Amino acid sequence: MNNLSDKAQILVEALPYIRAFFGKTIVIKYGGAAMTEKELKTQFAQDIVLMKYVGMSPVIVHGGGPQISGMMKRLGKEPKFVKGVRVTDAETMEIVEMVLGGTINKEIVTLINRHGGKGVGLTGKDGALIQAKPMKRGGEEMGQVGDVKAIDPQILRTLETGRFIPVISPVGADEEGRSYNINADLAAGKVASALSAEKLLILTDVPGILDDKGKLLPTLSRKEVQKLIKKGTISKGMLPKVEAALSAVEGGVRKAHIIDGRVPHALLLEIFTDRGVGTEIIA
Amino acid sequence: MNNLSDKAQILVEALPYIRAFFGKTIVIKYGGAAMTEKELKTQFAQDIVLMKYVGMSPVIVHGGGPQISGMMKRLGKEPKFVKGVRVTDAETMEIVEMVLGGTINKEIVTLINRHGGKGVGLTGKDGALIQAKPMKRGGEEMGQVGDVKAIDPQILRTLETGRFIPVISPVGADEEGRSYNINADLAAGKVASALSAEKLLILTDVPGILDDKGKLLPTLSRKEVQKLIKKGTISKGMLPKVEAALSAVEGGVRKAHIIDGRVPHALLLEIFTDRGVGTEIIA
Amino acid sequence: MNNLSDKAQILVEALPYIRAFFGKTIVIKYGGAAMTEKELKTQFAQDIVLMKYVGMSPVIVHGGGPQISGMMKRLGKEPKFVKGVRVTDAETMEIVEMVLGGTINKEIVTLINRHGGKGVGLTGKDGALIQAKPMKRGGEEMGQVGDVKAIDPQILRTLETGRFIPVISPVGADEEGRSYNINADLAAGKVASALSAEKLLILTDVPGILDDKGKLLPTLSRKEVQKLIKKGTISKGMLPKVEAALSAVEGGVRKAHIIDGRVPHALLLEIFTDRGVGTEIIA
Amino acid sequence: MNNLSDKAQILVEALPYIRAFFGKTIVIKYGGAAMTEKELKTQFAQDIVLMKYVGMSPVIVHGGGPQISGMMKRLGKEPKFVKGVRVTDAETMEIVEMVLGGTINKEIVTLINRHGGKGVGLTGKDGALIQAKPMKRGGEEMGQVGDVKAIDPQILRTLETGRFIPVISPVGADEEGRSYNINADLAAGKVASALSAEKLLILTDVPGILDDKGKLLPTLSRKEVQKLIKKGTISKGMLPKVEAALSAVEGGVRKAHIIDGRVPHALLLEIFTDRGVGTEIIA
Amino acid sequence: MNNLSDKAQILVEALPYIRAFFGKTIVIKYGGAAMTEKELKTQFAQDIVLMKYVGMSPVIVHGGGPQISGMMKRLGKEPKFVKGVRVTDAETMEIVEMVLGGTINKEIVTLINRHGGKGVGLTGKDGALIQAKPMKRGGEEMGQVGDVKAIDPQILRTLETGRFIPVISPVGADEEGRSYNINADLAAGKVASALSAEKLLILTDVPGILDDKGKLLPTLSRKEVQKLIKKGTISKGMLPKVEAALSAVEGGVRKAHIIDGRVPHALLLEIFTDRGVGTEIIA
Amino acid sequence: MNNLSDKAQILVEALPYIRAFFGKTIVIKYGGAAMTEKELKTQFAQDIVLMKYVGMSPVIVHGGGPQISGMMKRLGKEPKFVKGVRVTDAETMEIVEMVLGGTINKEIVTLINRHGGKGVGLTGKDGALIQAKPMKRGGEEMGQVGDVKAIDPQILRTLETGRFIPVISPVGADEEGRSYNINADLAAGKVASALSAEKLLILTDVPGILDDKGKLLPTLSRKEVQKLIKKGTISKGMLPKVEAALSAVEGGVRKAHIIDGRVPHALLLEIFTDRGVGTEIIA
Repeated sequence: MNNLSDKAQILVEALPYIRAFFGKTIVIKYGGAAMTEKELKTQFAQDIVLMKYVGMSPVIVHGGGPQISGMMKRLGKEPKFVKGVRVTDAETMEIVEMVLGGTINKEIVTLINRHGGKGVGLTGKDGALIQAKPMKRGGEEMGQVGDVKAIDPQILRTLETGRFIPVISPVGADEEGRSYNINADLAAGKVASALSAEKLLILTDVPGILDDKGKLLPTLSRKEVQKLIKKGTISKGMLPKVEAALSAVEGGVRKAHIIDGRVPHALLLEIFTDRGVGTEIIA
Repeated sequence: MNNLSDKAQILVEALPYIRAFFGKTIVIKYGGAAMTEKELKTQFAQDIVLMKYVGMSPVIVHGGGPQISGMMKRLGKEPKFVKGVRVTDAETMEIVEMVLGGTINKEIVTLINRHGGKGVGLTGKDGALIQAKPMKRGGEEMGQVGDVKAIDPQILRTLETGRFIPVISPVGADEEGRSYNINADLAAGKVASALSAEKLLILTDVPGILDDKGKLLPTLSRKEVQKLIKKGTISKGMLPKVEAALSAVEGGVRKAHIIDGRVPHALLLEIFTDRGVGTEIIA
Repeated sequence: MNNLSDKAQILVEALPYIRAFFGKTIVIKYGGAAMTEKELKTQFAQDIVLMKYVGMSPVIVHGGGPQISGMMKRLGKEPKFVKGVRVTDAETMEIVEMVLGGTINKEIVTLINRHGGKGVGLTGKDGALIQAKPMKRGGEEMGQVGDVKAIDPQILRTLETGRFIPVISPVGADEEGRSYNINADLAAGKVASALSAEKLLILTDVPGILDDKGKLLPTLSRKEVQKLIKKGTISKGMLPKVEAALSAVEGGVRKAHIIDGRVPHALLLEIFTDRGVGTEIIA
Repeated sequence: MNNLSDKAQILVEALPYIRAFFGKTIVIKYGGAAMTEKELKTQFAQDIVLMKYVGMSPVIVHGGGPQISGMMKRLGKEPKFVKGVRVTDAETMEIVEMVLGGTINKEIVTLINRHGGKGVGLTGKDGALIQAKPMKRGGEEMGQVGDVKAIDPQILRTLETGRFIPVISPVGADEEGRSYNINADLAAGKVASALSAEKLLILTDVPGILDDKGKLLPTLSRKEVQKLIKKGTISKGMLPKVEAALSAVEGGVRKAHIIDGRVPHALLLEIFTDRGVGTEIIA
Repeated sequence: MNNLSDKAQILVEALPYIRAFFGKTIVIKYGGAAMTEKELKTQFAQDIVLMKYVGMSPVIVHGGGPQISGMMKRLGKEPKFVKGVRVTDAETMEIVEMVLGGTINKEIVTLINRHGGKGVGLTGKDGALIQAKPMKRGGEEMGQVGDVKAIDPQILRTLETGRFIPVISPVGADEEGRSYNINADLAAGKVASALSAEKLLILTDVPGILDDKGKLLPTLSRKEVQKLIKKGTISKGMLPKVEAALSAVEGGVRKAHIIDGRVPHALLLEIFTDRGVGTEIIA
Repeated sequence: MNNLSDKAQILVEALPYIRAFFGKTIVIKYGGAAMTEKELKTQFAQDIVLMKYVGMSPVIVHGGGPQISGMMKRLGKEPKFVKGVRVTDAETMEIVEMVLGGTINKEIVTLINRHGGKGVGLTGKDGALIQAKPMKRGGEEMGQVGDVKAIDPQILRTLETGRFIPVISPVGADEEGRSYNINADLAAGKVASALSAEKLLILTDVPGILDDKGKLLPTLSRKEVQKLIKKGTISKGMLPKVEAALSAVEGGVRKAHIIDGRVPHALLLEIFTDRGVGTEIIA
C-alpha cells in the first residue's frame, strides 16, 4: 500500500502546477532525440496528451532536417548548407514539403492519436497560418529559405474549440503561393508570440545553455542571454534556438525554456516540478 | 534525475483514468476518520481539487453524527438512537441543522478553498435540492427523521457552470417547510442517481465489505450484495452504506464503492489506479 | 366589479417602477422585526419573490444578533459587547457560524422557497464570496470581529443565471481559513458596491433617520448625512446602518435607503410607490 | 399608510398569477370598444406592457371593420356584407390593407410604445406569417375573403428574442402574392395554435357567452359549446369568436376566453384574478 | 456548351465583389421607375434577394409620392407642395401612413417574398425605429413634415438574426405619438448612418449627377459635391438625394451612390461590376 | 450597357440554385485533368470559393496516382498494379503519404487560398477522420491498400465553424497506427455519407456514363446503374467511381454526379444550371 500512497502523493504534488497552467497555451518545438528514439517518442506523446487533459493547450511545431537530407540522398541530391542553413532550390523545397508535411507531421499526429489525443497536422499553408517572405540573410543563392511575415492564428483557435492538438510543419507561402522552408525554432517562436503563449518549450539534445566551464545556467534574463551571445559562449548550433526563445519572450511569451529532450518525460518534468530540466529565459 | 523520472512516470500512468473520467460526475459521501483527522482532511481536499482540475465534477455529501451528539451534550440534551437512527425531536433538529449546515459544511468549504478549489456549501433546502418526507420505518416516535422524496439537481448544474464544487449537508424540507434529518449515505445515493453519476464513493473507517472470514470482497454484483445481506454477513453499521450503494446502482450510477477513508489519498487511489481500496458494487 | 377595477389600477401603477428597475440588482439588509414577526416574515418573502419575478435581482444579507445571544446563553456563555460590537472569541465564533449559517440562513431560504422563489443560502466562505480581515477598531481583545477585505461576486452572478435568490450570512474567512464575524450592515454595503447595485435597502425597526425634533428626513445627500453624524443627531444604534449606506453610495450604488421594516410590505412600498417608507441617501 | 399597504397587498396577490404565466404566450384578439374608446385604449396598452414586463409574451391580433367601412364611404364605395362577411373586391381589398396595416396597426403600435413597450406591427405578409387561401364558404362572389392555409411563426419568435410585442393585421397572401382579407378572430385562433399559446383572449363588447336566459356562462367545455351552437343559443355576431376559440383549444391552446372589453383593464383582471371577466372555453 | 461556360465565367467574376461585401449592410432608397414598372420591380426583388443570399444585409427604405397624391385625389383632396415638400395636414398625414405603410410597403414585402426572400415591413413607429421631430425649414404651415431626431436600430439588428429583409416606410412619431411624414431620401441616409452601412444606394430616374454639359460625373468627393451645390449645377429634384448621400457619408457610410434605377438590375451592376451605374460620393 | 445587363441576368438566374443549396454540404472528388491543367485548376479553385461564399459547404477529397508513380520512379521503384489497384508495400506507402499529404494536398490548399478561400489540408489521420482497415479484395499481396472502417466527421464540423474549406488526402490509419492507401473515389463516397451531403460530385476525364453506343446517360437510378454494371457497359476505369457514387447514394447522399472535369467551370455548371455536365445517379 505504501507504494500506492507514494503515487497519490506525486499526483497531488502536480496540483499547484495544474492550477497555474490551467487554460494556458504551451508551444513546444519538437525535434532531436525526442523525435527519433522510440521510447522518447512515446513519452513525448503521453506528456502532450496529459497536458491537454489537465486543461492546457499544447501546440507542437516540429522540424525534420535529418529526414529531409535522407530523402534528398535517396533522390540523388546532395544537401548543401551555408552557415547552417539549408540551400533550398525548387526541387529541395518540394522534398522539404513532402517529408515535413507528408511524412513526419502525420507520424506525430498518429503518435498522439494512439495515446488518446486528437492531433491535427498543419503546415503554414493550411488556413494561411504562416505567411512567409524570403529570408533576408544569405541572399538569393539560399533559394526558398523563408522568414515569417505574419501569423494568422484563427485555425489554431478553431481547432482548440474542438479539443484538437495542432501539429505544425514550418513551411509557409507568400502571397503568390510560393513555398518557403522556415527554420522550425523561428516558426515556433513566432507562433508562441502570436498566441501569447504562457511558455515556449524548445526540445534539444543538450542539457541547456552552458557557461564557459560547461555548467548549466538554469535561469537567464534577456540581457544575460544577449551578453552570452556577444561573448560567443553560445554555440552556433544553439544560436537559432536561443534567438527563437528571445523573440518569443520579446513578443509577450512569459517564459521560454531550452530543455533536454533526451531526459525521459522532459516536458512533464518542466511543467510539473520545481526543478526544470534546462535553461529558462525570462523577460 | 531518476526520482523525477519516476514522478513523471506516475503522472503518465494517471492518463488513462483522467481520460476515462473526463467530464464525469463523482459523488463522494464524506465522513469518518477522513473528516476528523487533520492529515486525512488535507489529503481529502487535495484529492477533490485535483479531480476538479483534471475535468471531473466531484459533488460532496457529508455527515456529522459525532459533532451533533457533542453539541447536544453541550446543550444538556442526551442523544437517543433507535436501531442506529437518531431520534430527532424539534430541538434536536435545530441542533442538527446548526451543526451540519453552520459548522461542518463551512469547514469543508474552507478546506477546499484553501487548497485551490471553489467550494459552495448547500443543505437540501438551498435551491430546494432535497425535497424530504417523513421516514416510514420507525414511525412517529422517530420525530423529524426524513426520507428523500425528490432531488432537484438544478442548483448543482448551475454551480458546475461556474466551476464550483458543491458540498451538501443532508437536511431537507417538505412542502410546508418542515425540516428533516436525512441519513447522509441515503442522501448521497439519491444525489448520485439524480445526477446519473459515474461513481458513488462512500468513505468509511473499514477496509470494505468483508466475507465471513473477514476477507475483503473487492467486487460484488447487486445480487451478491443482496445475498450477503440476507445471510447477515453485513454488519449493522455497514448496512445503510450498502443500501445507499445498491440504490445508487439501481438508479443508474455505474459503480458504487465502499472505501477505506483511513488510507491516505483514498479517493485518488480509487480513481487513478487499477487496485481499488475497498469494495466496488456493480450493476 | 368596482373593486376588481381598483386592483387592476394598482397593478398598472406599478408599471413605471417595474420598467425602471427591470434587470437591476437590489441588495436588502434583512433584520429586526421583519425577521422575527410571523406576518412580516411572510410579507418579506412575498415581496422578494415578486421582485424576482418582475425582473429585478434581489440579494439578501441578514443578521441575527438576538438569536446568537440566545444560543450563547443556552450554552452557558455570557454575550459581551464593546461599543456595540460583540466580543468574538473562538467559541463565540463557532456559535455565530452555527446560528447564522445553520439556522437563520436556512429559515430564510425555506421562507422564500415556500412563496415560490428559489433561495440559496451562502456564507461569505461559499465561493470565497467575502474575503475577511481583522477589524482594526477595537484591537485584539475583540477577537474574530472582521472587516471586508474583498468581495468576489462570481458565485452571485452564477446563481443569477439559474434564477436563484442568494441569501448571505455575514461570516467570512481570511487566507488561512480563519473565520470572522462581520457586521451585517457593513457586509450588505460592500456586497451592494461589488455588484454595482441599483439600491441598498436596510430594514430597521425605526421610521428612518430623524432630525433633532424626531421628524423623519426623507432624503439626504452624503454631505448632509456626514453633518448629522458630526452633530451627533444619529443614534449609536443607527450609526452602522448609516455608515453602510454611505459606503454603498460612495462605492457606486445609486441610492441607499434606511426603511421601516415594521411597515407591512415595506420593500414593495419602497420599490413600487413614489412615497418611500424611510430615508433615502443619495450621492 | 393604510392605503399604501392595501396597494402592496394587491401587488402580492398578483404573484401566483405572475408565476403561473411566466414565459407563456398569450394571444389577444383586440377589437370593439377597447379599440375605440380613449380610456379603454390606454388601459389596454398598460395591461399589455405590464404583461410583457412580468414575463409573459403577449401577441396582438386586431380587426378594424368600422374603420374600413368608414374609409370605403369616404372613397364613395358602399360596403356590402353576405352573412356577416365583407364582400371584398379588389378595390375593397386595397382599402382593407391600407386601413388595417397603414392606420390601425400603427396606431396600436404607437399606443404601446407610449406606455413603455416596444410594439412592432405586422400583417400576415411580413415574414410570410400568414399564408392565405380563398375562403370556401360563400364562393367566388365574396372576392378576396381568405382562410388561413398555414402560419409561419418564425417572425414572431424572432421578435420575442428582442423583447418586442407583435401587433398583427389579419391580411395574408397566397403563393402568387394575391392579398386576402381574413377574419381577425379566425386569424387570432390560428396564430394562438401555431404558437401553442397558453391562452387566447378575445375582447368583445358583450359580457361573454350567455345562456337562453341571458345569464353569463363562466366556463364551458368544447362539447358544451358545440351543443349551444346547435341549439342556436349563440348569436350570429358571437359565432366567429366562438369558432375561433374552439379552433384554438382544438389546436393545443390551453384555454380560450371571450371577455368583456368594455370592463376597464379587462385583460389584467382576466390574467391576475380568480374571477374572470367573461366565458372561458377549455379542452 | 460555350454559352454555359460564359455563364460560369460571369458568376466567377462576381466572386471578388461577393467577398468584398460579405457581411456588410447595404441601405437602398427605393423609388422612381424601379418601383412602378413591372419588369424593373421584378429585377429589383431578384437583386435584393440575391444580395441577401450571398451574405450581404440589404435594408430598403421606400418613398411613394405619386401614390399618395393619387389617393388624396380619390379622397377629393388637392396635394399641395412648398419648395418641393408636401404640405402635410392631419388628413394628409393619415393618407400618407395608409398608402406608405398599408399599401406600398406590403407590396414590396410581397414582391420580395415571391422571389424567395423573407421581407418584413416596418414604419419608423415599429420598434420606435425612427424618432421624429418637426422639420425646422418651412415652419408651421408645412404641418406634420418631420425630421429624424434619432434612429434606434435594434429592430433592424433583431430582424437580421432571423435572416429577414427589412422594408421601411419613412414615417416616424415623436414622444407624444404624433406622426410625421419624413422625406425618404433623408430617412435612408440616417438609417445608413445608424447602421454604419457599407453603402447607401439611391435609385433615381436619371443617369446620376451630371456636370454643366450634361455629362455624368462618376465619382465625387464631398467637397466637389458641395461646390456643385453652390454653383447650382445640381437640380432641385436631385438636391434631397445629394444631401442624403452627403449626410450618410459624413455619418460614417463608406460610399453613397446615386444610380439610375431605370437600368435593368441596376443594383447588381452597381454591386457586382467595376463599372458603376451612376455617381458615387466618397468621403 | 447591354453586355452588363446580360451579366446581371446570369447572376439572377443563379438565385434559385443558391437558395436550393444554401447551407448544404457538397463533397467533391477532385482528380484528372482538372487537377493537372493550369486553366482548369484556377477555375476549380474559383468555383469552390464561390460555392463557399454563397453559403454551401464544399469538402474536397483528392487523388494523385500519376504523381505517386512519378515519385516512385524518381526513387527507382517500379509502380505495380493488380486489377487497377496499386500494390502498396511499406516503401510505396511512405511515398503515397509524402506525395498526397505533403505535395498535392498543400498545392490545392494554396490554390484555394490564392482565390480568396481558407483551405485546410487533412489526411484521414488528422483528427482520426478516416479509420482504416485492410482491403479484403486482393489479399495480403496488395500490402497497405485500405478500406474505410469508419469516418469521424468532427474535424470537418469544427473547420466549418471557422469558415474553412477542408481538403482531404485519402490516407487512413488503423488502431495500431499503421497507414493505409485508400482509393480516393471510395473515400469521397464515405465522407459524403458520413456528412449526409446533398451531393457528391466526382470529377473525371470523360463526359459521364455512356451507353453501349457511346451516348451520355444524363440520369440513372441505382437499379439502372446496377444493370449497366452487370451488362459490362461500365468500363473498368469508371467502375470505382460508379461504386463510390452508389455507396454514397445508399448512405443517404441525395444525388451523386459523375461529371466531366475537362469542361471549364464544370462544378459551377453542375450546381448553377439546369443542364448538368455528366451523369447523375439518384436514389
